[in-house]
Amino acid sequence: MNTRTRDLRREDLHASVSLPVMDTMNFLNEITHRYPEAISFAPGRPYDGFFDVEQIFTYIRRYLDHLAAGGDSPARIRDVLFQYGPTAGLIRELIAASLREDEGIDVPVESVVVTAGCQEAMFLVLRALMADRDDVLLLTSPCYVGITGAARVLGVEVAAVPEREDGLAREDIETVVKEQVAAGRRPRAIYVTPDHSNPSGVTMSLQARRELLDLAERHDLLIVEDSPYRLVSAGTRLPTLKSLDRNRRVVHLGSFSKTVFPGARVGFAVADQVVGAAEGRDGLLADELVKIKSMVTVNTSSLGQAAIAGALLQHSGRITDLNAGPAAYYADTMRTTLDRLARELPADRRARLGVRWNEPRGGFFLTLRVPFRADNEALGRSARDFGVIWTPMSYFYPEGGGDHAIRLSTSYLTRADIETGVSRLAEFIEAEATTGGDGLSGSRRSV
Amino acid sequence: MNTRTRDLRREDLHASVSLPVMDTMNFLNEITHRYPEAISFAPGRPYDGFFDVEQIFTYIRRYLDHLAAGGDSPARIRDVLFQYGPTAGLIRELIAASLREDEGIDVPVESVVVTAGCQEAMFLVLRALMADRDDVLLLTSPCYVGITGAARVLGVEVAAVPEREDGLAREDIETVVKEQVAAGRRPRAIYVTPDHSNPSGVTMSLQARRELLDLAERHDLLIVEDSPYRLVSAGTRLPTLKSLDRNRRVVHLGSFSKTVFPGARVGFAVADQVVGAAEGRDGLLADELVKIKSMVTVNTSSLGQAAIAGALLQHSGRITDLNAGPAAYYADTMRTTLDRLARELPADRRARLGVRWNEPRGGFFLTLRVPFRADNEALGRSARDFGVIWTPMSYFYPEGGGDHAIRLSTSYLTRADIETGVSRLAEFIEAEATTGGDGLSGSRRSV
Repeated sequence: MNTRTRDLRREDLHASVSLPVMDTMNFLNEITHRYPEAISFAPGRPYDGFFDVEQIFTYIRRYLDHLAAGGDSPARIRDVLFQYGPTAGLIRELIAASLREDEGIDVPVESVVVTAGCQEAMFLVLRALMADRDDVLLLTSPCYVGITGAARVLGVEVAAVPEREDGLAREDIETVVKEQVAAGRRPRAIYVTPDHSNPSGVTMSLQARRELLDLAERHDLLIVEDSPYRLVSAGTRLPTLKSLDRNRRVVHLGSFSKTVFPGARVGFAVADQVVGAAEGRDGLLADELVKIKSMVTVNTSSLGQAAIAGALLQHSGRITDLNAGPAAYYADTMRTTLDRLARELPADRRARLGVRWNEPRGGFFLTLRVPFRADNEALGRSARDFGVIWTPMSYFYPEGGGDHAIRLSTSYLTRADIETGVSRLAEFIEAEATTGGDGLSGSRRSV
Repeated sequence: MNTRTRDLRREDLHASVSLPVMDTMNFLNEITHRYPEAISFAPGRPYDGFFDVEQIFTYIRRYLDHLAAGGDSPARIRDVLFQYGPTAGLIRELIAASLREDEGIDVPVESVVVTAGCQEAMFLVLRALMADRDDVLLLTSPCYVGITGAARVLGVEVAAVPEREDGLAREDIETVVKEQVAAGRRPRAIYVTPDHSNPSGVTMSLQARRELLDLAERHDLLIVEDSPYRLVSAGTRLPTLKSLDRNRRVVHLGSFSKTVFPGARVGFAVADQVVGAAEGRDGLLADELVKIKSMVTVNTSSLGQAAIAGALLQHSGRITDLNAGPAAYYADTMRTTLDRLARELPADRRARLGVRWNEPRGGFFLTLRVPFRADNEALGRSARDFGVIWTPMSYFYPEGGGDHAIRLSTSYLTRADIETGVSRLAEFIEAEATTGGDGLSGSRRSV
């Protein structure tokens, strides 16, 4: 029936289908599937224990009650749920209010665009801003793969600024800006995750935030601020870049995947930049994102939006209130991981092995520097022989690097799993350091 | 506080933000808002009367029961709803089964990718296939704006094949293919809506379908088949291109927006083409769409998918069963519109005015040819003076045209509104034909 065995050649498809990180991510999934008993520090997902199926029904009902209390007729409420909705979103007011309450970000409702997860928000912002083939997006190295992937799909050039152990340094950014300008490119924006970054766990200091805003002004850059781990972190928070922004230099991206739940697929962009046009009326950057969104997903699922709105409404519209419990939980799992690392790898052993790690005060991730190549082969040995899984940090380097570092995610595990997992990890590191990673000798355990 | 009044120039943003159709669509929205009492033949949305808020809860509950009956644990079911889900979708099996039952399309489950509405499916398929700047997408003129918009966002070149009153003619397609090849371009795919097309209402004959498949084979084209109005139409259906496809030439796109409800934002692509790679394993085009989707929306809302699955499960997994009522309703509104047109504009009056229309046997739309320029100005007069709204057909012509035609959508109205609306439309046409559209004399009514 089918006369050909191959219908298309991958080489004839768009370059984004050959993104190397996809193959490495697939390898991680395979490993996870092959060793189901292994303890995994890989997934950057929220802890399941906060979820309960009945919440979905309660959340949606809560939003419908809110609409009724606001005077919407039953027919109108039915249409809100069932029909095509506004491309900019149904719950912009609630989001704008929570930004004021939780973050001190005070922006017009019209600058908020609700998206199919924060990923779509990144995608729309990149598409709007990167107009010309010479435009370039600055990002950090290491960097969240969602932004590099979106850039690849859109054919957008990126240039990486190396992240230091305490964040981005102004001089490093300026060096990259100058290099790009010298190469005939136009740096348009810089993508940053100021708080408890994925993958590194690094947080930008207040001074670095102010310097970045100043630098953006001088070099006519926009800052794309993505901060999904802020409001699931306990303790004092530094101000968002957006709340410090006096000249509308910052496009702020938001996600409800960590703060409410990922399955809703609801995120947003705050884009209050005024766009002037040679012809026609001035508008906001948000209006332009809405136009693009209408050609990508039309509008965001009303059910997802209703669930997020209901969750917000149950907590006086405040994400901080909603996340008091989870933030404490994640603080505890991070603390447990760091304490256990310190116990399993005390200073002398650490020095002997050449291991070190950072100590994030929040978020889901930390970076561990190791004395061996932390590649897929090492990951395979770790899962098979030691029953512990992690993410090679090299996955997150857009221009190479990170070969001797791993990312540990602390969000998804219980305290008991963390303690066992860190012990296994220490055994694995010892074995790799001893054998040089040939996998032929040293301590072994089967899982 | 804000030192600049304008932060960005529209000319510095991507070309897709200046898509002319967005401005015209905005005009239509403004008109609809300004004349709320006017009867509108514009929106191509399903009829509200089939929806009931409680269905949402029943649908989602039905899907959760289905998972439990299949042996999923409560913890697993909770994670299906709340956590990140597989990028390819949760409900591929149900969709593949309904395609077999409803459409005689028998494809592996792995070839189905669930998307954030059919719009995202278009977007992913375009991105995967249009790899090179010389690649060109063929489409019809007039054409659904979602595909031209997606092409614009991705910077994909399009070439229009004029649609005849009975569909696409093989010779017209071949002419465009030859022109494009002569211009150094590579025609990669042709986008078609074979059944009750939006905007024209035209359906492709069985012979035209076979010829298109044959032509695709000869010119090494893929066919992107989009058919959202098929299963909301009563009566006998011609086979889909995909069910006639013997050589995996057809990528079939699906939407649940008309058959279940738009707010779920769930659609899908069927991409069973085998992709060979110089390095690595062969895979399906679906796998490549999944990779791109992971960089656009990550995965489709679990709540939307759960609702669609629940609706399907309530009707033995068959969209045809689920849509028996709506299909009969839409058949009646289309018939009512055509009957009323014939009564208001009988043969002699029609000939005198120079008006004619096609007679679709299903779907939501029909085309009316009129003796005046059916532009935004005419639409404004129609709404203001006659209380009737329609869509200028010129909105749907990617390369210009359609100035003397309007699209009527018959799906959203009640029978009574249709009868009144068509009478008003006939009065408006008479006035335009008489006054030449200067809006200064002729029959008037206020709304």
